[in-house]
Amino acid sequence: MPPVGRRPGRSGSREQILGAAREHFARSGYDRATLRGIAADARVDPALVRHYFGSKHGVFLAAMRIPYDPARLIEALAAPGRAGVGERTVRFFVTIWDSPEGAPLRGLLRTVVADETAAELMRSFVSREVFGKLAGALGVDRPALRAGLVASQLLGLALLRYVLRLEPFASATADELASLAGPTVQRYFGDDLPKIRTRAPVRRG
Amino acid sequence: MPPVGRRPGRSGSREQILGAAREHFARSGYDRATLRGIAADARVDPALVRHYFGSKHGVFLAAMRIPYDPARLIEALAAPGRAGVGERTVRFFVTIWDSPEGAPLRGLLRTVVADETAAELMRSFVSREVFGKLAGALGVDRPALRAGLVASQLLGLALLRYVLRLEPFASATADELASLAGPTVQRYFGDDLPKIRTRAPVRRG
Repeated sequence: MPPVGRRPGRSGSREQILGAAREHFARSGYDRATLRGIAADARVDPALVRHYFGSKHGVFLAAMRIPYDPARLIEALAAPGRAGVGERTVRFFVTIWDSPEGAPLRGLLRTVVADETAAELMRSFVSREVFGKLAGALGVDRPALRAGLVASQLLGLALLRYVLRLEPFASATADELASLAGPTVQRYFGDDLPKIRTRAPVRRG
Repeated sequence: MPPVGRRPGRSGSREQILGAAREHFARSGYDRATLRGIAADARVDPALVRHYFGSKHGVFLAAMRIPYDPARLIEALAAPGRAGVGERTVRFFVTIWDSPEGAPLRGLLRTVVADETAAELMRSFVSREVFGKLAGALGVDRPALRAGLVASQLLGLALLRYVLRLEPFASATADELASLAGPTVQRYFGDDLPKIRTRAPVRRG
């Protein structure tokens, strides 16, 4: 039953799964969503979902039309080591957002503020799956704290550049933004980040 | 005709002016709004608007129910000098946002992303009137650039704390957030901020 190849294009089943997945993620949030639940909603076998998308993570990327696989991105950002990771991270994210493929991400930025479910998706996905894993790949402690701080600076910059369209941020190049905000991100991944009292972590599914 | 005293409470004229001002600011944006135009919309004499609120800036604060006068706030933040201004700024803003009087500001944070006019108000008011003037009071160059960078970090933190409610940011104390993000704001007011190519500044009214 599953078609040959991993990108069967306009297959009915594939689109059917993605439609069910969007509703499932919106209803359950990223953490509580399961590949099995998505398959049940789409009325297909879980093996078919796994065949197309590999994992819950993969379904999410496809359902949200996120153009880059965070796993490969994190590898690319972390591979040269901790030196310069701040500038690399800012430059990379601005470049993604600026690209035509960045449109859904820029859209998510608006939705997140208006819509609790989008907020929950952003919270668990961005902070844990993206920046949290980057912190892990860099071998630093307290990945959730660092991930949140990095997300705060990048979301704030994106807000200025794409939503408020404030100059010079709207027209600055990715390199310029990296030179301004890169050291901030670098410090958030650094050894001298102050300790704060521990709080309940984000719930894990 | 103007009542005695500057806070006459439920005076019809005062509320009438604030209602007209909200529409006027929403339609014109902060920069293009004028005290004279607000008076005309409210069908009162400009002298009455000046009597109640002092200036366009004062009308704006009252219309938006902003609980602190930025002029006094900036004085308090800048008076001890540049050392420590980053931590003071973060601590002060978190404390304002957390207070019951901070509710309209937390509301504005959601509106800004969904609504172009709110975005225009935030853009001109926050970046120029608040952080831009703080940069001016500290005697640093490129106040608009620094103001924007400070705004980006504080907006991002506010997004995490109040909208996404991400831990540990949602439950952290103002002092803890100041210790984490204060050095970022400090650097944005510092001498070693990289130069970038000059762009068209925000239009002035």
